[in-house]
Formats: sequence, structure tokens, C-alpha cells
Amino acid sequence: MTDIHKGLEDVHIDTSSISRVFGDEGKLNYAGYWISDLAAHSSYEEVTYLLIEGELPDEDQLARFEDTLTQHRALPEQTMTVIKQMKDHNPMDVLRTAVSSLSTAQPGQGFDSGWNKEQAHKIIAAIPTIVATLDRVRNGKTPIEPRDDLSHAANFYYMLHDEEPTETEAEAVDTALILYAEHGMNASTLAAITTASTQANIYSAITSGIGALQGPLHGGATETVVETLDTIGSADQVDAFVEHEVEHHELIPGFGHRVYNTTDPRCKEFERVFRDLAEDPEHNERLDLIEALRDEVVGELGDKGIYPNADLYSGTVYRSLGIEPDLYTCMFTMARVAGWTAHVFEQWDDNRILRPRVQYTGETGKAYVPPSER
Amino acid sequence: MTDIHKGLEDVHIDTSSISRVFGDEGKLNYAGYWISDLAAHSSYEEVTYLLIEGELPDEDQLARFEDTLTQHRALPEQTMTVIKQMKDHNPMDVLRTAVSSLSTAQPGQGFDSGWNKEQAHKIIAAIPTIVATLDRVRNGKTPIEPRDDLSHAANFYYMLHDEEPTETEAEAVDTALILYAEHGMNASTLAAITTASTQANIYSAITSGIGALQGPLHGGATETVVETLDTIGSADQVDAFVEHEVEHHELIPGFGHRVYNTTDPRCKEFERVFRDLAEDPEHNERLDLIEALRDEVVGELGDKGIYPNADLYSGTVYRSLGIEPDLYTCMFTMARVAGWTAHVFEQWDDNRILRPRVQYTGETGKAYVPPSER
Repeated sequence: MTDIHKGLEDVHIDTSSISRVFGDEGKLNYAGYWISDLAAHSSYEEVTYLLIEGELPDEDQLARFEDTLTQHRALPEQTMTVIKQMKDHNPMDVLRTAVSSLSTAQPGQGFDSGWNKEQAHKIIAAIPTIVATLDRVRNGKTPIEPRDDLSHAANFYYMLHDEEPTETEAEAVDTALILYAEHGMNASTLAAITTASTQANIYSAITSGIGALQGPLHGGATETVVETLDTIGSADQVDAFVEHEVEHHELIPGFGHRVYNTTDPRCKEFERVFRDLAEDPEHNERLDLIEALRDEVVGELGDKGIYPNADLYSGTVYRSLGIEPDLYTCMFTMARVAGWTAHVFEQWDDNRILRPRVQYTGETGKAYVPPSER
Repeated sequence: MTDIHKGLEDVHIDTSSISRVFGDEGKLNYAGYWISDLAAHSSYEEVTYLLIEGELPDEDQLARFEDTLTQHRALPEQTMTVIKQMKDHNPMDVLRTAVSSLSTAQPGQGFDSGWNKEQAHKIIAAIPTIVATLDRVRNGKTPIEPRDDLSHAANFYYMLHDEEPTETEAEAVDTALILYAEHGMNASTLAAITTASTQANIYSAITSGIGALQGPLHGGATETVVETLDTIGSADQVDAFVEHEVEHHELIPGFGHRVYNTTDPRCKEFERVFRDLAEDPEHNERLDLIEALRDEVVGELGDKGIYPNADLYSGTVYRSLGIEPDLYTCMFTMARVAGWTAHVFEQWDDNRILRPRVQYTGETGKAYVPPSER
């Protein structure tokens, strides 16, 4: 009997020094540092450098890396055209195509690690511009040119709204990007490294990651949480909602995680960000609702290992920042491109092409007859 | 100690009834039928139906399927624009972007198997048009509109050359497409099903497959064989070349395969096609060279399991058909999209998201200090 490892569950495909998830303790570290420290003190630029290079940059390294990203914020013509022509389609389809269109690889160009590193920086820099441009164009607004005096997070907000963010708003975007930048091996990262393992270029690898993140079983979850919160409506409806869902054995969006058996450590960071943002009454109301839902679900299902995950908060944070629900998976992409890039270069450092097997269960040796005799 | 399955070598990730490779016997079957029967008697359209639906179509089913493909040969405006704007870039980057741009998925659109099936047919139909259009545009020629009275293979040749193929030429394209349509689990198919396993759409899945096929360790091999044949020059140089390569322990492009321990069964079919094509003296010369190389390498290395693979012949067949070397991986894509589609739908029929693990070997609990103190 051949062992079938469906979903590759519990199959270790490699070693990695990029991040570690402590599922039982509810902790997460990126290349040695706790996510709580990075979320509180670091920036997305710094975390991206950490993930890709394996250590935090010193002041000079950070300044150079920030410069590189700033220089590549503007989009080439073909990418602007893709966005304009596809503006009314699914935003993840537009983002996948737009990132794919950034490539300037030449005919016959073979594998070149240095070239790929430069291109990775270009992709990371360009994604916020793609997302902001898409949202403006599809809403009939003029795209806003990137500014080079704002951080990665603040510039995104500025390009989206044609308005500089407050410090709190910029911090909220930055923290969300840090929290979603990396999370060990998962379907989108597997897609990215599988593609990279053939020595395809970084555009192919990242495009594969974006493709996989699109699915509702992976990156699409945040949008569902906000829909659920809309359905519940207010904190006093939480009891009835949870009772009904538990009775019908429904999964409650924003709760439960394949890796964590306790509260996802990213929740606490999102909660902090959200409290900072929630100064106006409307946001406060949503916070009450989330907390009531959290307490009720953990009370009912905590003993079954069902605890809040990061998606419970992130969508509401994006909502407070004026980001439309169908862009939430794009926000996830904007963050996770750092983790994909790190895993792709780790794969290339000691590469072996990914080539698993399948167990054939079909027939063999059937006689071919022409269509007219079938 | 955790077992690490690097490259996923010999890990069975699922059952499948799409194809089986008999590595020791040098045989290959698609859904029960021997590749030799299909290459000799079938068409790419019929084989594509077989792979996706699991059985050969009857006359009506085949006619309907051919009609569907014929209807979707023309490219939408945004895809024509992508090709024109990216025409001088790496053809696989253009093809990946162009296929990605075909999507008309709507914002917020969730998973829908029926919709994805229709879109898969659109993608399969459009790829030859993308490749032919790219080649014409980059050479300053006018793109040729697809015709609906020609087969998938013949129409591709017609759009590429603005000239109908002879029966032999159409048969050569068709046979090459059949032979490369499917080959069990491999890196590009893994990338496609990993992406599909999140319930991302078929555009995301196929784009991932294209990305992975780009790499020189996977789809890029055919181009290298033709370069090697160019280097050798003629049959009387083969002995010296092979002696040198064997002495320096070099891999000889077109020989050896991770799965086959004997001659790749697709070689015989390609040889037949090539003999049919090789009526003019130039082609005959190349055939002499290939056969001399084959005999010499098998003589020297056959006892080490080094035998010809399909790539030894395919590039030379494409060359005889007037197809430029940097399009060979695009030809591979044009064929393999059938296999990717079949595996994606098989994945969705009994889906589990692919989420393997990695063994963390980095540090934990490092203290965060600000950049100025590093």
C-alpha cells in the first residue's frame, strides 16, 4: 500500500529559517523576532528586509533598502494599461495580471539570482501602486502619483485617498502589512516555491503566489468576516447568531485556524491598532460587536480549540481605513509578497525541483476506436 | 528527527486517473489509452477532451467540443494590448501575462466549477492565438485572425505563417501537442493544483502552471537541445562531442529523465513525425545528426540509464515547422494546458488545500533593538 499524503498535511518539505508558528502557545516569530515586538516597533520595510536577508538592517542598509523601494513605486506603461483595461474585473485577477506585466525579462534569458533580487524589490514596491491605482480608476478617479517622502504604508494610503494619512492611520496600514507579511509554509508560499524550483523567474513565482492567495480557502477569508459582521449587525444580536451557527454546525468566519489551538497572536496587535483608530462612534460600535462575538464564540467553542484568528480584526481595520471589501485580498498580497520572496530565495539557495508523485487509479490498455464506433 | 522530503521526491500526494508513466517499460498512457495509439489516430482536441472528461468523446461530443474551442480562438482587446506592449520581452512572460489577462471574473466572485470549466475551454482555445500573435507582432507582421474551418493544430500554423499547413505539417503540430499534453505529476502541474486547492479560479491555476513551466529545469529544456545540436553541427562531429562531454561528466541535453529508465516513448512518435517532415535535404541532415547522437550516447551511457527523452526530437520538429527557438516553451504550454486543466478539475472533485510544513532551523526570541543601536 502506497501512503497518500493528501493536502501534504504534516509532510515536511524542507527546512527553513524564515518564520516559526507556535500553534499551541499562540506565538509567531519572523527570523528570530517575536511578531509583537516587530508590530510595535518596526516598519514594513524593515520587516521585509529581515525576512529576505535573514537579519535586521543597520541604519545604512535600511536607508538604502527604503530608497530602492521608493524608486520603484511608479508603474510602467504596460501595467497602467492592464489596470485600465481590466478595471471592472475581480481585483485579484487584475493584480495577478498587473504584477505579471511588470516583467522586462528578455527572450532566452536564463536564471540569474541577482537580477531576480532586483526584480523582487520592484514587485514589492509596485504592488501598493497597482492596488491604489486600480481602486481609483474603477471609481472614475484620477490615479495619484506615488510620493517619495512617505513610508511604504503611508504612501499607499495617500495614493488610495489622495490625502495623507494621520499618524494613527499610517501606523494601522503598516502594522497590518507586518502582521500578514509571512506565516510559514502555506498554499500560496508552496505555489511560489514550486514555480521557483524550476528556475522560473521571480515574476512567475510571485504570480503563482498571488494566484493561490485569491482562493476563498486562503486569502479570501477576510472579506467573509466583514460580511458576517454586517449580517449580525450589532452586539446585542451576537448571542442569537452564535447559538444558531453552533446549532447548525456552521464554521464562524474569523475563528479557528489550522495551526493555532489558541488565540492567533496577530489578534492582539490588530486589537491595539483598532482601538487607536476607533475614535469616532461608528468604529467603536464595530469594536463592541467584535468583542461580543469573540467572547461568545470562545465561551461556546474554545474547548474545541476554536479561537479568534487575525481575519476577525483585519477586515474591520481595513474598513476603518476606507478600503473596499473586494480589495482585502489585495491588502494581504501587498503584505505577503515579502514572505513569498523570502521563501523563493531560500529555495534557490539550496534548490531541488519539486516533483511529487500521484498513485494512478485509472485503467490501462484500453483499445482505441474511432469516434464513429464509440 | 523529522523526515524532510526535499523536492517531494517519491511522496505520493494524491490518487489520479489522468495518466500513468511506466518508467521501466518506457510506456505512457492517458486515461487508459497508450500514447502511441493516440499519437497515431487521435487529435489534440480529442485527447484534451479525454484528459479533462476521463473518456473519449463520441462523435456528437467531439463536434460540440471542437465548436466550443473554435468559438474562443479570437483574443479580447486587453489581451491583444498586453501582447503588443510586451512583445519584446521573454515570450513565457508575455504568455503568462496574456493568459492572466483573459479573465473576466467579477469582483467578489466566489468559486464556481461550471464557470471555471467554460473558462478552461477559453484558455485552451486562446493560447495558440496568443503565441502566433506574439510572434507576428514582434517580427513587425500583422496578426492573422483565426479561422474556424481548421483544426486546433492547423489553425495555429496558419496564424503563425499566414499560410495553410500541408497535411504533414498539420499532423506534426498535432502530434507534438498530443505528446506533450500530459505527463503525470510534475512541478508545473503541482503549481497549478496547489493554486487551485485554495479555490482560486482557473486563470490563477493555469497562470501558476505557465510560470513553473518557464524554468530551464522544466519546460526550458527543448531550447537547450537545439542549441546543443547547433553546437555539434553535423553527424561526423558527434563522436568527439560525446567523448568530451562524458569525460567532463556533463549532462547531455535531450537525454536522461527523472522517470524513464529507458527510451522515452514519445521519442518514437516524434521520430515518425520527423521522418514525414524531412523531405528536404536540410531536415534530413538534422535527422542524421540526431540519430548519430542518440546511438553514441546510448552506447556510452545506456548502462547508466541515460536514454533519449522527448526533448531530443521536439525542438528539431518545431524548427522544421519554422518556429523560433524562444517559442518552444510556449509550444509546450499550448499542449500541457490540457493536462493542467485535467488535474485542476480532479483536484476540485475531492479537494483538500495543500498545506505542507517546513522544519524551522532559525533562531527564536532575539531582542529587538532600534536600527541606530545595531
